[in-house]
Amino acid sequence: MKCDILIVGAGPAGLSAALYGARANKSVIVLDGLFGGGEAGKIAKLHNYPGVKDTDGFSLLYSMQSQAKAAGAVFVNAYAKKIDCASRTVYTDKETYEAGSVIFATGCASQKLGIDGEKALVGYGISYCATCDGALFRSRPVALVGTGKKADSDVAYLAGIASKVYYITDSDYSGENVEVVRGKIAALEGKPLSKVILGDGRELEVPALFVNIGYLPITSLIDKQVTTDEKGYVITDENMMTSVDGVYAVGDVRKKTLRQIVTACADGAIAAEHAARRKK
Amino acid sequence: MKCDILIVGAGPAGLSAALYGARANKSVIVLDGLFGGGEAGKIAKLHNYPGVKDTDGFSLLYSMQSQAKAAGAVFVNAYAKKIDCASRTVYTDKETYEAGSVIFATGCASQKLGIDGEKALVGYGISYCATCDGALFRSRPVALVGTGKKADSDVAYLAGIASKVYYITDSDYSGENVEVVRGKIAALEGKPLSKVILGDGRELEVPALFVNIGYLPITSLIDKQVTTDEKGYVITDENMMTSVDGVYAVGDVRKKTLRQIVTACADGAIAAEHAARRKK
Repeated sequence: MKCDILIVGAGPAGLSAALYGARANKSVIVLDGLFGGGEAGKIAKLHNYPGVKDTDGFSLLYSMQSQAKAAGAVFVNAYAKKIDCASRTVYTDKETYEAGSVIFATGCASQKLGIDGEKALVGYGISYCATCDGALFRSRPVALVGTGKKADSDVAYLAGIASKVYYITDSDYSGENVEVVRGKIAALEGKPLSKVILGDGRELEVPALFVNIGYLPITSLIDKQVTTDEKGYVITDENMMTSVDGVYAVGDVRKKTLRQIVTACADGAIAAEHAARRKK
Repeated sequence: MKCDILIVGAGPAGLSAALYGARANKSVIVLDGLFGGGEAGKIAKLHNYPGVKDTDGFSLLYSMQSQAKAAGAVFVNAYAKKIDCASRTVYTDKETYEAGSVIFATGCASQKLGIDGEKALVGYGISYCATCDGALFRSRPVALVGTGKKADSDVAYLAGIASKVYYITDSDYSGENVEVVRGKIAALEGKPLSKVILGDGRELEVPALFVNIGYLPITSLIDKQVTTDEKGYVITDENMMTSVDGVYAVGDVRKKTLRQIVTACADGAIAAEHAARRKK
């Protein structure tokens, strides 16, 4: 199937690209299978998107999606399986698309601990999103591993829900209900999770471990075809075009200085506008 | 008076910078004297700001301003008179501010025709904003001079209001109620305006001439102190910093690829975040 602009990912960057592409009167397909909303959709309280005072990630994304649909963008619940950047052919579990331009808006995913059993415990005590899952552990002790502002903020959030938060970190942090724990996680016990075991043998009896050790860009579909930096973020020019003509990267997946919803939206607008005006 | 971040201009870029600066717990002063809302405030129907489906420029700016105020930004109705970029001292018609960082968000202004009497006729038949002033000429003939998509769109808008639109342009355009006129404007007659006279002597009897010949960046306060491009747009790095340390330029005044409300907001967020983290 042919289309002018194919967008992979339906977070803020992808939705903004869809809006701008459709308003430029181009045929726009958005694949929202894997990435519906992405990280932004998990934000419980959102105060820093200019012009929308108090909202949450899901509501804002819903508005963006309905706006893009009203402008004419078509949303397809399909998963991209393979992308050939040079020919801009996108293979999904349903259709195959030949696109005039491809806008890659897959965002980032939480970094994993890389400990045995971690994957199997997702949904059984391991969580990468305090906002999503914190409420499941009301009045019970939980642990969080991480460092930095985002981790601190999640700890404070969890401390208001859990009976106690073990904060496995090298941060200097103090807060009611919070015990700072130094050390590394060596093992996980139980399914559902019952214990987090540290390198020196200490055991934390918790039904939940929140992992907040950073993000990594989701680029496996294109990382061998476009130029990335050493961390894997896709490098673009000021029009958001990657090293391959007609293939754009927008939002968190792109190498950039500030990852915010509003900067993701700006990326999407710029890419779609450029794609719409590009001579083929 | 000292402050962490001083923002000159209160359009989308300045308001977004104010929001982000205040949320970073910095003392933020916004000078909104000259530029309250700027060009964006004139938009009657706004459909392309992601997440806010149907609005107008003024409403969106009002939301952004109240959000920035709620976050702690202080708005001062003063006019910047002189800026010393090196020392980041901003002289206004009221206070003088010594700022840790200055964010320059003055936007663009409509380009003038440069014809005798033009300035005196502003408000008496010369207008740079069809959306603002079109409704004043209901069922009367008007003229518009300009070219390009924005001019075409304004002509279509005016054709729905005026009895007839003379479109002085080199565009190919056709539309009900519209007469395309080739030629250059030589003179303006009457106050209020009664006639637009073309170079070959033709006369258009109209009470209004809408001028839509492009925009120019408003940089007179800093253009001799920071690097600009040949058109006068301020050149920044990816953090929005100008050639002078601690002085940022955001939004339409900056050299960039796409001038939209959402890209202006992204600029503001990036600059304020960088300013907030900058070592002084």
